[in-house]
Amino acid sequence: MSRPLLPALVGEALGTALLLAAVVGSGIMAERLADGNAAVALLANAIATGAALVVLIDVFGPISGAQFNPAVTLALAVRRQMPWPRVLPYIGLQILGAIAGVWLAHAMFDMPILQTSAKLRSGPGQWLSEIVATATLLTVIFAALRTKSEARLPYSVALTVVAAYWFTASTSFANPAVTLARALTDSFAGIRPQDAPGFILAQMIGVGLAVGLDRWLRRVTPAPLPE
Amino acid sequence: MSRPLLPALVGEALGTALLLAAVVGSGIMAERLADGNAAVALLANAIATGAALVVLIDVFGPISGAQFNPAVTLALAVRRQMPWPRVLPYIGLQILGAIAGVWLAHAMFDMPILQTSAKLRSGPGQWLSEIVATATLLTVIFAALRTKSEARLPYSVALTVVAAYWFTASTSFANPAVTLARALTDSFAGIRPQDAPGFILAQMIGVGLAVGLDRWLRRVTPAPLPE
Amino acid sequence: MSRPLLPALVGEALGTALLLAAVVGSGIMAERLADGNAAVALLANAIATGAALVVLIDVFGPISGAQFNPAVTLALAVRRQMPWPRVLPYIGLQILGAIAGVWLAHAMFDMPILQTSAKLRSGPGQWLSEIVATATLLTVIFAALRTKSEARLPYSVALTVVAAYWFTASTSFANPAVTLARALTDSFAGIRPQDAPGFILAQMIGVGLAVGLDRWLRRVTPAPLPE
Amino acid sequence: MSRPLLPALVGEALGTALLLAAVVGSGIMAERLADGNAAVALLANAIATGAALVVLIDVFGPISGAQFNPAVTLALAVRRQMPWPRVLPYIGLQILGAIAGVWLAHAMFDMPILQTSAKLRSGPGQWLSEIVATATLLTVIFAALRTKSEARLPYSVALTVVAAYWFTASTSFANPAVTLARALTDSFAGIRPQDAPGFILAQMIGVGLAVGLDRWLRRVTPAPLPE
Repeated sequence: MSRPLLPALVGEALGTALLLAAVVGSGIMAERLADGNAAVALLANAIATGAALVVLIDVFGPISGAQFNPAVTLALAVRRQMPWPRVLPYIGLQILGAIAGVWLAHAMFDMPILQTSAKLRSGPGQWLSEIVATATLLTVIFAALRTKSEARLPYSVALTVVAAYWFTASTSFANPAVTLARALTDSFAGIRPQDAPGFILAQMIGVGLAVGLDRWLRRVTPAPLPE
Repeated sequence: MSRPLLPALVGEALGTALLLAAVVGSGIMAERLADGNAAVALLANAIATGAALVVLIDVFGPISGAQFNPAVTLALAVRRQMPWPRVLPYIGLQILGAIAGVWLAHAMFDMPILQTSAKLRSGPGQWLSEIVATATLLTVIFAALRTKSEARLPYSVALTVVAAYWFTASTSFANPAVTLARALTDSFAGIRPQDAPGFILAQMIGVGLAVGLDRWLRRVTPAPLPE
Repeated sequence: MSRPLLPALVGEALGTALLLAAVVGSGIMAERLADGNAAVALLANAIATGAALVVLIDVFGPISGAQFNPAVTLALAVRRQMPWPRVLPYIGLQILGAIAGVWLAHAMFDMPILQTSAKLRSGPGQWLSEIVATATLLTVIFAALRTKSEARLPYSVALTVVAAYWFTASTSFANPAVTLARALTDSFAGIRPQDAPGFILAQMIGVGLAVGLDRWLRRVTPAPLPE
Repeated sequence: MSRPLLPALVGEALGTALLLAAVVGSGIMAERLADGNAAVALLANAIATGAALVVLIDVFGPISGAQFNPAVTLALAVRRQMPWPRVLPYIGLQILGAIAGVWLAHAMFDMPILQTSAKLRSGPGQWLSEIVATATLLTVIFAALRTKSEARLPYSVALTVVAAYWFTASTSFANPAVTLARALTDSFAGIRPQDAPGFILAQMIGVGLAVGLDRWLRRVTPAPLPE
């Protein structure tokens, strides 16, 4: 919390940029190589995203908290573990970093930098998926905070995302900055710009569910139970 | 053991629900994308299940013990590490949670909520597989208890299940609540309702084998040997 | 070293049996499902084997040392970390356990119990592969012993085998008991009985190389360097 | 730093040789088995490389520092964590080891030992990819040094490489010795000799970026923040 602000903002921007480069870049590579087998492509995409998440949370954790996600920043502020005046700068840099990461992926794969996605991702099943994915991700983070075991978070978050890529119908965006940035790529990981608001609204409902569950759990199980 | 009862029951139900959502949801996604290659589908299903198990045991361990499995609850009660009066409530909530999780997966993938499986899973090889899978899973859990290394259980259990998805002919249910709930989905992970009793009976034999082996090992190797 | 003998022998037999059930069972499952794509089959086989190895070494380590491999038993005896009178009983039980594990896999998959493999695995490239695979495996184990970090061995050994399944031309048997037992299955993981002696001879050369390297390293870097 | 020189040089050569044997050998195996699906081949190649890296860094870390990479050696020297007089011998042995590892892979797979690659890897996207891959790899290593958490490096480095195989267009060489050695194999992992200089130049730019970022981070966040 008492981290210096400037490196924290640089860390959030850089970490979110590399996260998006990993998500979008591995999606492009996987689609190019997978010979039409979308399950192989999603498997590669999930493994690359999970591997990147472990490392990025590890590297940027001590610098910025490695939130990379406005839903996380907001939920931590509600939980009083993130000072409110930092919320908007954090979210702003997360979004800018995410967009820069998508563009970096396009540049690495010799594609036009500026794109918008044509991939339809809408409907009740998709929205329910985003509620579940976001609530699950935050529940995992809150559990680590309740039991003072933040050191496990790089792997816990990565494995949550790997699983949720597969078990939700939306492949689990669970992150408003990621959602906005992925509207700007017409590749495997894209989402149509007009579908982004529905996803972000669903993610906010997921935040509410997770915050409520965590509040109840902290009330009924007063002291952390060390393992 | 002295965990408050209400959050423990909520934890078992919620954790088992998310486990089944992961198992069934990733099965649906994998089958849709895998273009007929069942090995790719099972690989995705196994990886998603394993990733979910690590996280769910980590998150719900301090709340409910993260058993998610009537076979585990029963075996721990026999081993006097679970109070008998809690056994029935735990098993009841595990089954209700498991069914809710299957329905959540159906809702996320825009499928009819109420289904029953048509997937035949029967015969001596399948039953032997369930005996081996359940005995192995419990042997892994008992080993951690004998050596006071419960902290390793999230990964040990997850890796056991990932391996057993592949090396048993039944893809390793090893869990009566999971078996009942998977009878209610006509997708990749399903089992015909009429085949469920045979699986559950085999799982109970597996419990007996593991309990007997553990009892013998505790007698002949008196003190835990720390590594 | 001062482990009671009877549970140690039971542990070696049971652990080696489950290891072979995992190797051969996952090979059968993978070949059945992989629709002719041998890379997908080997990927599943490697992941299942690696996951099983982590868990089995963890579970049987405190009981028997979890050697599961005559090459390891022999090398440890040469290094004076295994009493010579236990070498033959250990190796005997490893071989019996390995064969029982192959038969268990056959029973689970409703195949004839007694088989012999028709899979040709011979020639200089295969033999060189077994030398490299065995020397690498033992070098990994010796490194953990030199730095007193045996706790890392379950993952180190599993990852070594996962990598060696892919980077050696023989898919890395690296274990005489495994070699003999895999001659008794006419499935994905098999090896023709007449090719087994060549593999075992190559593995013994690998033992010699690893023992020599370890001896030199212990001489030139006298004290363990903690990280 | 005060490691004895001779075993350190042998360690660098042996470790880099085994790394290249893993990269090139698993590429050959994957291409042979993958039935034309390049995504499955790259997935196997990435998993085998990552598994090998964890183990090799673990084994050779206490002996030589397990750098295996002239870019890492150079960057550590600039950061004063590697004595300058050792830089050239280290780099020399890394290159010799890398070439020997490629030849070992060829020998295991019964291929001609001496080859040169015909695989075109050139152009701005490829070069940008190598800049990003090398800067990311070094940023991960520097982060561990800043927070005194080198024990995590085997997994951090391996996961970085697994992700970067997928999210960069070049499949992430990020290592001049690896680049030179992979010019000598006409298989999955190869690179045309005439494309090697462009890759190495890009890697050097990546080193510069990472060194600059690390220097700035150490200035603005004075003391390491333990998690």
